[in-house]
Amino acid sequence: MTDRYRDFRRIAAGLGTEAVALVPGANFTRLFGHEFGTNERPLVVVIPVEGAPAAVVPNLELTGFAALKFEGEVFDWRDQTGYADAFKALAAHMPLKSLAVEGQTMRVFVQLALTGAQPAMKIVDGETAITGLRYLKTPDEIAAMVRAIAISEAALGETLDGVRIGQTDKEIERMLVQAMFSHGAEELAFGALVAAGPHSAASHAHARDVAIRSGDPLLLDFGARWGGLCADITRTVFVGHVTDEAAAVYEVVLAANQRGHEVTRPGLTAHDVDDAVTSVLEASPYADRIRTKTGHGLGRDVHEAPYIMRGNHQILEPGVVFTNEPGLYDPRFFGIRIEDDVLVTETGSRSLTSFPKDIRIVG
Amino acid sequence: MTDRYRDFRRIAAGLGTEAVALVPGANFTRLFGHEFGTNERPLVVVIPVEGAPAAVVPNLELTGFAALKFEGEVFDWRDQTGYADAFKALAAHMPLKSLAVEGQTMRVFVQLALTGAQPAMKIVDGETAITGLRYLKTPDEIAAMVRAIAISEAALGETLDGVRIGQTDKEIERMLVQAMFSHGAEELAFGALVAAGPHSAASHAHARDVAIRSGDPLLLDFGARWGGLCADITRTVFVGHVTDEAAAVYEVVLAANQRGHEVTRPGLTAHDVDDAVTSVLEASPYADRIRTKTGHGLGRDVHEAPYIMRGNHQILEPGVVFTNEPGLYDPRFFGIRIEDDVLVTETGSRSLTSFPKDIRIVG
Repeated sequence: MTDRYRDFRRIAAGLGTEAVALVPGANFTRLFGHEFGTNERPLVVVIPVEGAPAAVVPNLELTGFAALKFEGEVFDWRDQTGYADAFKALAAHMPLKSLAVEGQTMRVFVQLALTGAQPAMKIVDGETAITGLRYLKTPDEIAAMVRAIAISEAALGETLDGVRIGQTDKEIERMLVQAMFSHGAEELAFGALVAAGPHSAASHAHARDVAIRSGDPLLLDFGARWGGLCADITRTVFVGHVTDEAAAVYEVVLAANQRGHEVTRPGLTAHDVDDAVTSVLEASPYADRIRTKTGHGLGRDVHEAPYIMRGNHQILEPGVVFTNEPGLYDPRFFGIRIEDDVLVTETGSRSLTSFPKDIRIVG
Repeated sequence: MTDRYRDFRRIAAGLGTEAVALVPGANFTRLFGHEFGTNERPLVVVIPVEGAPAAVVPNLELTGFAALKFEGEVFDWRDQTGYADAFKALAAHMPLKSLAVEGQTMRVFVQLALTGAQPAMKIVDGETAITGLRYLKTPDEIAAMVRAIAISEAALGETLDGVRIGQTDKEIERMLVQAMFSHGAEELAFGALVAAGPHSAASHAHARDVAIRSGDPLLLDFGARWGGLCADITRTVFVGHVTDEAAAVYEVVLAANQRGHEVTRPGLTAHDVDDAVTSVLEASPYADRIRTKTGHGLGRDVHEAPYIMRGNHQILEPGVVFTNEPGLYDPRFFGIRIEDDVLVTETGSRSLTSFPKDIRIVG
């Protein structure tokens, strides 16, 4: 019989810890095939290097938890009495000197509940290793991403066809979100971002309810989630007309994006890809408008490994999916970003996104 | 000049810590009036009991951060070099022996970055006190919630009118979500939950794409976000017809919900309200189907203080908003929940939700 915890036991041993703790989130969902929400009630599964796992579970989640066919001891707790005793029972059942946790996912109150029951236990951030299990996407995961991307691109097409001068960025954002759901999105991968004019240069700004005007660039960064997997796409279009300068900047960003597609192949590092893409931006007259790295891994989380940046010498392998999203940003005038989702293949790469990237005028 | 950090300085002092740390989230947004996303890049503001605050900010967020008109030192960091040095610079600038954090919001990797730079610094969970600043809603916040609720109720009405036998729970969930956006939702307060048949008894289950059948109860738990504030509403309706048993259970839940509205007034505790509501359920023939407390506070977070449960002796005051959501759940057959959003007033309470609660047949 396969031990479904094998990878986690290996990670705990590799980090020199006695166990790994998982909380609801992408790693948990992938392991157990069931999604649990994140709220004020701690739920944690502890997997030791050897032997049966154990868990602390809110009593009202026990029905849902049963679907996991969990093999170990479960310590449940009720709202009325709190969770401290359940963590003490876990500590008595499985005393630990060290524990690896998902640092980007576990919140401090859960860590304090764990260490409150075992004050000498050392906490180690195992995020990189644990999330690394999701580094290579399975065929099912890739198929789900392809569907999430198809939904997102259909929504973008419909939205851009509907854009009119005088609408606000917020109205357009709402059209885009509705279109994603009408085309089959199960959730949004993240809050959609639609920004016009100078606001397009703000890194993660949301729509402000300001009417778009002719000449504005319109940046749309968005994605649907389907089957638990994310799409993440950016296109920058122009309202009414495009200025010569904006067109020139656009062509530089597009050339950088295309360079990213061309160079990507297994065996290269994340550093190599960022270096190739960023070099195109640096060689342009707009090098002072560089603000960000080239991209990030994409999967069950919208931001995950590998981060496509200089200094990250993680090797790209077939099955890795990342965003190729160079941009140039001048907060005084405008920002332009073009973002595709790229799958590393055996021989090179394949863009999972196919929405056209020629300069487009809308409105 | 007012010191906008006054409340946080008082909390730090009250907890016996030298400072409070805030990360992006509801408390941060309320203090600064600007929302920052939560991602893999740590951003933290530290407010000492006396003197200027300081912050660690990702370089690419500096433009957005400028809008905060932050008064203190800012240590920025870039993806290429990582954040350890910025946290060391913060520690050198503001050495601390103790720090209160938002335990439900801050993730472990941020805490490890903070304590990595000052290993002797003691971390205290200040969540209750910090989030307590949002305990009483301002008139603007109440107005935003009223709008979020109006959007949600309009969406529910439209969705229930459209339900047909043979549709799946997932299709209905998607109709509901689209309707929220078409009626003006800025975001969802949380992932909408639509569950039919026995699945309605699972506490936080999502739709499974199973066709609804005559006799099924259909539970819809959902809410829009508008102006940063949440709605959270549940109605349970019946497809085609309602069985005698389901109708009997429904009337018990409705009576418990109504009891909650009747008893709520300033000066009572959260315990008192839960006790009054739960007593109605306990006095019924279905006492063994009780699974949850009566409700939770509602505001910028969909779950916040006060938690309406026995043992919580927090006093209700005018301006508190909470959910009144009794339910009865039998995993073999069905679950029924009715959830309203309740504002505590000077003289009693006002239900912000007004969607009818009579037994309703749909499809």
